[in-house]
Amino acid sequence: MTWAFGFCHAPWRSKHLASYPSRKSFSYSNCQNKISRLVNGNLTWRERQATLHLCATQKSSTLLERVKFDRNGLIPVIAQQYDTQEVLMLAWMDREALLVTIKEGRVCYYSRSRNSLWRKGETSGQVQWLKDIYIDCDGDSVLLKVDQMGVACHTGRRSCFFNKLNGEDWEIVSPVETSPEVLYGRNSSALKNP
Amino acid sequence: MTWAFGFCHAPWRSKHLASYPSRKSFSYSNCQNKISRLVNGNLTWRERQATLHLCATQKSSTLLERVKFDRNGLIPVIAQQYDTQEVLMLAWMDREALLVTIKEGRVCYYSRSRNSLWRKGETSGQVQWLKDIYIDCDGDSVLLKVDQMGVACHTGRRSCFFNKLNGEDWEIVSPVETSPEVLYGRNSSALKNP
Repeated sequence: MTWAFGFCHAPWRSKHLASYPSRKSFSYSNCQNKISRLVNGNLTWRERQATLHLCATQKSSTLLERVKFDRNGLIPVIAQQYDTQEVLMLAWMDREALLVTIKEGRVCYYSRSRNSLWRKGETSGQVQWLKDIYIDCDGDSVLLKVDQMGVACHTGRRSCFFNKLNGEDWEIVSPVETSPEVLYGRNSSALKNP
Repeated sequence: MTWAFGFCHAPWRSKHLASYPSRKSFSYSNCQNKISRLVNGNLTWRERQATLHLCATQKSSTLLERVKFDRNGLIPVIAQQYDTQEVLMLAWMDREALLVTIKEGRVCYYSRSRNSLWRKGETSGQVQWLKDIYIDCDGDSVLLKVDQMGVACHTGRRSCFFNKLNGEDWEIVSPVETSPEVLYGRNSSALKNP
């Protein structure tokens, strides 16, 4: 896959994002001027980061025109292991999470319980590396092909879909592969899924 | 798979459902009495249908305790082809759609645009036969393993996820297998996805 903006190997860090200028100040010609200065080496490090970010944002606006977020600004996202085709989980993204995922090549969701970005694996190390992104015919749901490191589920199972209907009962059909205590430490008993 | 309530080979038809008594009139002991009469052959056909329906509903309440619908009474549902593992679509169910799907063994969604049950394939014939149902660790999303007849997408493609991100553009990567005109008739140009 060709990564959008070619940022796959130069991930943006959230601590940098905070220092970026407002998107309102962006214009395409302004961006072009800054690109010239960028190429000529006339920008400070911070200006360089901000310029790259703003240019990427401008392109992203076009890219995201096809993506329909709901009235809460969210879209449901399916994560599927790219080689085995196993469906790992369903989570949510906002506009920023989708852009971060595309830019970093590492999956970032939006946590509805925390009301914040949720870089998958930031605590547990169980990262999802992005392989491909699809949107559906209506543009209101996303399918990610990912390479899941370790386990996707906060219970320590490979997939979150481990409760299978058997007759009238939900039966657990997948084993715990990694203890939540190993993933999250001693306080894992109080852990909730983000 | 063992079908819940054993209704797989005796599907309930919507025209029958309309004549069922209100769920409010149901009690478990009442159900048990009716089961005795059912076994003894003392019920009319309509009473027989109503009794089976009410008993199934009572069991369903337990079954659905683990399923968390959102504040609109809906839950996102992934449909995956059971043998190839291809993800076909993401749609929504309400409580009734999930119960109908389990009872009939044929997938029924809830159409958010029509605000009504949407028996997949009722117009196009592109039915999804249910193989298995899973809920995720939080119980707030559903994964269906299905056998898709024909195509899943209203555009005539096998899967709804045919727009793949390539660089900065969404590229169509799957062919139309069946013309929408064949699926929906001459007015297919005005067709919207339910």
